[in-house]
Amino acid sequence: MSEKSSNQMWGGRFAAGPDAIMEAINASIGFDKRMATQDIAGSRAHAAMLAAQGIITPSDADAIREGLLTVLSEIEAGTFQFSTALEDIHMNVEARLSEVIGEPAGRLHTARSRNDQVATDFKLWVRDQLDAVEGGLLALMRALLGQAEAGADWVMPGFTHLQTAQPVTWGHHMMAYVEMFARDLSRVRDARKRMNECPLGAAALAGTGFPIDRHMTAEALGFDRPSANSLDAVSDRDFALEFLGLASISAIHLSRMAEELVIWSSAQFRFVTLSDRFSTGSSIMPQKKNPDAAELIRAKIGRIMGANVALMTVMKGLPLAYSKDMQEDKEQVFDAADNWMLALAAMEGMVRDMTANRPVLEAAAASGFSTATDLADWLVRELNLPFRTAHHVTGSLVALAEKKGCDLPDLSLDDMTAVHDGITEAVYDVLGVHNSVASRQSYGGTSPVRVREQIARWKDILG
Amino acid sequence: MSEKSSNQMWGGRFAAGPDAIMEAINASIGFDKRMATQDIAGSRAHAAMLAAQGIITPSDADAIREGLLTVLSEIEAGTFQFSTALEDIHMNVEARLSEVIGEPAGRLHTARSRNDQVATDFKLWVRDQLDAVEGGLLALMRALLGQAEAGADWVMPGFTHLQTAQPVTWGHHMMAYVEMFARDLSRVRDARKRMNECPLGAAALAGTGFPIDRHMTAEALGFDRPSANSLDAVSDRDFALEFLGLASISAIHLSRMAEELVIWSSAQFRFVTLSDRFSTGSSIMPQKKNPDAAELIRAKIGRIMGANVALMTVMKGLPLAYSKDMQEDKEQVFDAADNWMLALAAMEGMVRDMTANRPVLEAAAASGFSTATDLADWLVRELNLPFRTAHHVTGSLVALAEKKGCDLPDLSLDDMTAVHDGITEAVYDVLGVHNSVASRQSYGGTSPVRVREQIARWKDILG
Amino acid sequence: MSEKSSNQMWGGRFAAGPDAIMEAINASIGFDKRMATQDIAGSRAHAAMLAAQGIITPSDADAIREGLLTVLSEIEAGTFQFSTALEDIHMNVEARLSEVIGEPAGRLHTARSRNDQVATDFKLWVRDQLDAVEGGLLALMRALLGQAEAGADWVMPGFTHLQTAQPVTWGHHMMAYVEMFARDLSRVRDARKRMNECPLGAAALAGTGFPIDRHMTAEALGFDRPSANSLDAVSDRDFALEFLGLASISAIHLSRMAEELVIWSSAQFRFVTLSDRFSTGSSIMPQKKNPDAAELIRAKIGRIMGANVALMTVMKGLPLAYSKDMQEDKEQVFDAADNWMLALAAMEGMVRDMTANRPVLEAAAASGFSTATDLADWLVRELNLPFRTAHHVTGSLVALAEKKGCDLPDLSLDDMTAVHDGITEAVYDVLGVHNSVASRQSYGGTSPVRVREQIARWKDILG
Amino acid sequence: MSEKSSNQMWGGRFAAGPDAIMEAINASIGFDKRMATQDIAGSRAHAAMLAAQGIITPSDADAIREGLLTVLSEIEAGTFQFSTALEDIHMNVEARLSEVIGEPAGRLHTARSRNDQVATDFKLWVRDQLDAVEGGLLALMRALLGQAEAGADWVMPGFTHLQTAQPVTWGHHMMAYVEMFARDLSRVRDARKRMNECPLGAAALAGTGFPIDRHMTAEALGFDRPSANSLDAVSDRDFALEFLGLASISAIHLSRMAEELVIWSSAQFRFVTLSDRFSTGSSIMPQKKNPDAAELIRAKIGRIMGANVALMTVMKGLPLAYSKDMQEDKEQVFDAADNWMLALAAMEGMVRDMTANRPVLEAAAASGFSTATDLADWLVRELNLPFRTAHHVTGSLVALAEKKGCDLPDLSLDDMTAVHDGITEAVYDVLGVHNSVASRQSYGGTSPVRVREQIARWKDILG
Repeated sequence: MSEKSSNQMWGGRFAAGPDAIMEAINASIGFDKRMATQDIAGSRAHAAMLAAQGIITPSDADAIREGLLTVLSEIEAGTFQFSTALEDIHMNVEARLSEVIGEPAGRLHTARSRNDQVATDFKLWVRDQLDAVEGGLLALMRALLGQAEAGADWVMPGFTHLQTAQPVTWGHHMMAYVEMFARDLSRVRDARKRMNECPLGAAALAGTGFPIDRHMTAEALGFDRPSANSLDAVSDRDFALEFLGLASISAIHLSRMAEELVIWSSAQFRFVTLSDRFSTGSSIMPQKKNPDAAELIRAKIGRIMGANVALMTVMKGLPLAYSKDMQEDKEQVFDAADNWMLALAAMEGMVRDMTANRPVLEAAAASGFSTATDLADWLVRELNLPFRTAHHVTGSLVALAEKKGCDLPDLSLDDMTAVHDGITEAVYDVLGVHNSVASRQSYGGTSPVRVREQIARWKDILG
Repeated sequence: MSEKSSNQMWGGRFAAGPDAIMEAINASIGFDKRMATQDIAGSRAHAAMLAAQGIITPSDADAIREGLLTVLSEIEAGTFQFSTALEDIHMNVEARLSEVIGEPAGRLHTARSRNDQVATDFKLWVRDQLDAVEGGLLALMRALLGQAEAGADWVMPGFTHLQTAQPVTWGHHMMAYVEMFARDLSRVRDARKRMNECPLGAAALAGTGFPIDRHMTAEALGFDRPSANSLDAVSDRDFALEFLGLASISAIHLSRMAEELVIWSSAQFRFVTLSDRFSTGSSIMPQKKNPDAAELIRAKIGRIMGANVALMTVMKGLPLAYSKDMQEDKEQVFDAADNWMLALAAMEGMVRDMTANRPVLEAAAASGFSTATDLADWLVRELNLPFRTAHHVTGSLVALAEKKGCDLPDLSLDDMTAVHDGITEAVYDVLGVHNSVASRQSYGGTSPVRVREQIARWKDILG
Repeated sequence: MSEKSSNQMWGGRFAAGPDAIMEAINASIGFDKRMATQDIAGSRAHAAMLAAQGIITPSDADAIREGLLTVLSEIEAGTFQFSTALEDIHMNVEARLSEVIGEPAGRLHTARSRNDQVATDFKLWVRDQLDAVEGGLLALMRALLGQAEAGADWVMPGFTHLQTAQPVTWGHHMMAYVEMFARDLSRVRDARKRMNECPLGAAALAGTGFPIDRHMTAEALGFDRPSANSLDAVSDRDFALEFLGLASISAIHLSRMAEELVIWSSAQFRFVTLSDRFSTGSSIMPQKKNPDAAELIRAKIGRIMGANVALMTVMKGLPLAYSKDMQEDKEQVFDAADNWMLALAAMEGMVRDMTANRPVLEAAAASGFSTATDLADWLVRELNLPFRTAHHVTGSLVALAEKKGCDLPDLSLDDMTAVHDGITEAVYDVLGVHNSVASRQSYGGTSPVRVREQIARWKDILG
Repeated sequence: MSEKSSNQMWGGRFAAGPDAIMEAINASIGFDKRMATQDIAGSRAHAAMLAAQGIITPSDADAIREGLLTVLSEIEAGTFQFSTALEDIHMNVEARLSEVIGEPAGRLHTARSRNDQVATDFKLWVRDQLDAVEGGLLALMRALLGQAEAGADWVMPGFTHLQTAQPVTWGHHMMAYVEMFARDLSRVRDARKRMNECPLGAAALAGTGFPIDRHMTAEALGFDRPSANSLDAVSDRDFALEFLGLASISAIHLSRMAEELVIWSSAQFRFVTLSDRFSTGSSIMPQKKNPDAAELIRAKIGRIMGANVALMTVMKGLPLAYSKDMQEDKEQVFDAADNWMLALAAMEGMVRDMTANRPVLEAAAASGFSTATDLADWLVRELNLPFRTAHHVTGSLVALAEKKGCDLPDLSLDDMTAVHDGITEAVYDVLGVHNSVASRQSYGGTSPVRVREQIARWKDILG
């Protein structure tokens, strides 16, 4: 088949037959150029070590290290010409280095291979993301702390099944998300620590006969140690899988908060007003504010979890050591990292800018007999009724109030004692929403005093 | 917080604080410009209909339709300036149209909205992909038919559990994949038919009070009919989900064949030789051929299934009608479509170019007592032994051959009759691998006569 | 290692060392007994064919077919003793058949293998599910039609971004779901048709040398034809993958409607009242109705999509023909089928029983300047303003109304003409929500006249 | 609609109309009874705390604690009657407790709710699994160490792309898996530590007004501390998501090793012989050993990752605090935990029992010019050639050997010097596979001396 007819067959999609198809499926430079900084850092550390171990001369090492800085500056300046024919970032950089410094460039690749090189580059890139995400999570936690501090004692409905269950405080609700994102942060830190082993020096898969010093390169690149098995070092993508796994959980947290913001900013709820910056309007309905940013954040779990599934599926059943399948790892991680960071930043901005509508929150908290459990608890605590009996009495009182079209605090003491004659005036202390939330002083409870303790604890931790 | 400090906080990731973050998360022009052709086709059909219905003047419609062709030619020439501030392809095109033709451009958006516009554009894009994929699948099926025809009677091992079970023919094995890809094709055609309803005219969500003719635009754009419910028309992404679902199944088929090619081209199997075009070598080991293309094809199921999971997750629990979450639909479909097409093209090339190693295949087929079931079936058929008894006798003969270090056809008739005295010389007719495959003449069986029938049937279908 | 110590090592999880572990991982009878009916139907058809082709005697076939009915009645009566040692349903049935009828049982397995047998059984099971799901979808569509018919002209807010965009009708909203579930039905029917090819007679993988009639068994079991390639017949699980894929899309539809019901039944929305049958209450808050069934339906997409991912992952990269990995297919499909059916049934019940709160819906529809687009369209249509100009005028009027604390219909004609002097008394005809919905008469639009057309069309189709 | 007709409509699937459907979708006792032990432990700790804090009397607490032991013994003995009408394990246990001890049972539920109770039970269950999995991982690592120790210096091919790249040692290959499973273990331990916070006392969502001591119950149940936010405590399922995430990565490792075992036990590779215990045979081909256990292990990633996807999807977008959707959490975790444990146990057994075929491994390692990189490295090291030049010389020598039909060590020194005249007799020292592996002494390399170091290190760690 001529290349021309192949091109026609594929509807013009591929420029020129089999060779173009192979280049299209095989080349990675289109995406792995994002690791240029990491690639050059790795090569510079490698060259220094080769010289220190007497494997190349100090002058060759110097030429290589200087030349790599030149290449880096070209890439940063946007003047570097990337070539698809050179397939990947490693070959692009090395080819350019060769043009810049000539013959010594040919000694850089001694005692390493593209397999350990790409594993090192990619690990460095993921590690940088973990550090960036740490910053993003901390910023979001601080924004939540700001909201919590402002509204530690504002009451709002606490929902189960999106039905009002009990009053809680705004601060308490904000702090629930601080706990979630703190767990994300904890996972980020564990993952960073676990992945911080350097593959460089594993060579193609078996290690090398050159007298290299893997501890030296590991240290130069900020790793805790070299990886302990060269076959594993080039076969392993756990660090990428773990990154995607913890990003997925964090994206779920973001989706939950985003869902709340979408619902809360509906005309029916009006719990919060989002800032114009994170909403979009309508030329025709100037009052309308669409919570676009919240919806997009809610959606990000899709692509992040999709990336997670993608890489897990790629890695399924791959024999050791390196298989080309693994080239599919980077785009998934890049996309997930970008979108996670973007969602964190957008959420941080929305949280910082949003305004809680206190009167609406309080009115909603007070409706729906939301202090019924307070009443039942009072009956248990003060009258020593068994729990199940107290619930029966409370149910009767709620039914009575519903029949009368009023709420629990509006029932008279006579109404109350008609249902259970032990009830006293003191019961009214627990029926208001402010009293309700104030009473829930168990550790971790919604009482403002407890909420402020947690805020103080977190401010202390976050510094 | 100043925008400057925001930028610092996010590590330089976002140019200038909240507004930049919102733009980054909100704008879609970075990817939806791929739908420019579809967007312009939709607008041209819409303008023609508006004029036909007397909603705009014929001269305005002509100006719009001509102007849109100008815009299209600019996009195709690469001279069009896309603007992120204009958010998406629809606004980019309309803004440019306004520059080109002035006031009439303002009448184009009558009786439509971005919601039905984007649904129409995206459906047209997906429909184009279904057509392209049809071509790709047919090309691959033809390549497989070519291999099957050449080797309709070449014998090779038929595996279960990657253990030799029975001899089969090369043609039969190739034709198994023809069946698989034919089912993919069948799904593609069903999906195309099902999705071929036009959302245009659903407007924002409720339809419109303008006297539009939705059947006219539907027909102009090649749809079978307008969609029957305007709320559904703008909320629906089934066509994208179904595309990703059938792409995933097809990618599984490709991964299975790719796995076989990787294993078959190992030094231990040597069943096939892949062409240099779809392998990569080693500067140092010139004999080595890495099946890179096969490995990359095997991996593609990851990202395609990941895209499938991503969009399903995005769509989970979205209330009607349009939510901004749905903007996450396109990138997943674009990426899956590109990679599916690429994998089909690469597989087509590999299949066309690969060479079966007939002697190796035949030797492998003949080893491992692969005709034991033929022997057992002969005992049932000719000696009328019950199936379970025949298996027992066969097991004894295999054990005898194994003990003697020979294969079944090497046992003497005396050896045979010592185990079961009804066995005659005729048994040797079924013990050779060629006789074995020739005998399996049940419909769909591996016998060359059956395989050639299927090849003829498919050549007839594919034309 | 002694078996005892193995058991201790595994914390008592496995009864007795390696053999118990192998049995635990290998046996399928724990789940594949659900295919007993299908297994026996397949065997009865196979026996009849063997006799018709003279491969076994008519009397043996009769004994087998009668004996299988006896076994079936034991299974249906719950008296059958399933044995894990016999691994799977096929061996359990055959072993019992042997006890019941003796020697002829040994002839049943002639010219088939467990590979084609399990493929046939599983296909029959999936086909039965497709038929059951068709019933479930039709029932749900009828329930939706009932709601739509009752409320074809009830107005409610049409949302985008969960913000009121335009008024729509209750009937229109219900009919949007009819369209969605109709697409599910269409996918079910396509899948059923595509998968309706019979694997029986493919034997282990290569077909058979016995003179079987695969068309006869295919017909007896209700298949359209025998499958055309025996290798493919035993390797293929497309029918299961496609089932899971279409179940996933349907579960997404269910999750969207469930989300709406959860939000609509919140105290803030109060759009619908769910029946007590599909809610759960609180002993303490008798007025509270938790939409448990809706939440559980919303969640079902998780496990159905999880099953879809599971089986796709299992099938990735499997070489032909049969691999034991494929034994993991059934539990996923069983679980997805059960939960899909359950979700359809629960949704049908909820839809049938729920009550729309018309005054709340109408009030919500009328708030938020929901007829602003009607006003803009009127300006275009009646005053011939360009679309973009009309939007500008409308924005000014909405801003004026907002400033005055009233809605659009409450503005005086003087107010109106002050903004644009072409406006006349006739404008008020389009500003009320009932007029708004009545005006949207484009095909598929929300106007009651259009909605009733669609209801009539669907009642006609559903019979 | 009568319940009878509903039943008919659903094809007999549901016993009696809407109520039966609601019960079927709502009840969890069918699966959550697996948490009986944890539920009772939690209740006993809660009762003791209530008495210590003076909320209930010591005698009531004693009665409750004793009664719960009675209930537990009934459950363990299999005599407990579970009731679907009582919905879940919590109500089943409490109802039975009430029968056993009467009135005091009604005081147990003071200051708690089913929301914090189920979160506590489920966390305890997951924590138990993490402990069990730790045992399973350690056992598997020990089995791998056993294989590595036996074959620290056996040579085998090191593959990239399933093509021989360089010789490695059997011990090195086994130790690569030790590293992988060690990372799994590290993740298990991190997850256990992170999740070890007690939700009990969070009550429905807001905490409680009773003077409970959450630190006391946390300690009694082995938690490090109580959870710090009651809303989060009942909304959080991170511990389940993280469990599924790390199980997925571990299942990927298992799938990779399983794939190798399937390939290695093929007739073409013959690298290992699996024991009969973990294979299945054929009655007809006694020599055949199907690696069923390896295939099933390979497949387990499907359902484990499917469960991961399922729960992530369920949790997407759930508003705080408890939603009924979350009831879908347990079955996924139960199934994943069971199958992960089973796969670990089966892999441990297979590794322990398998036999490496040393001569086959060594012959394979020596073929394919596998020491070409050793030759190139020698040229760099000894003759100081630049890396790229050395590769060129090596390529010429390999081509020469291929042309002569021999391997590299078979070339004469004259052949060698004809290509590069600096080559000396010493080159032969690096061309044999044993010399090759011995030379790769970089840290983590394949040299037996390095492998034995790692074995010693791990034996030290594992104790």
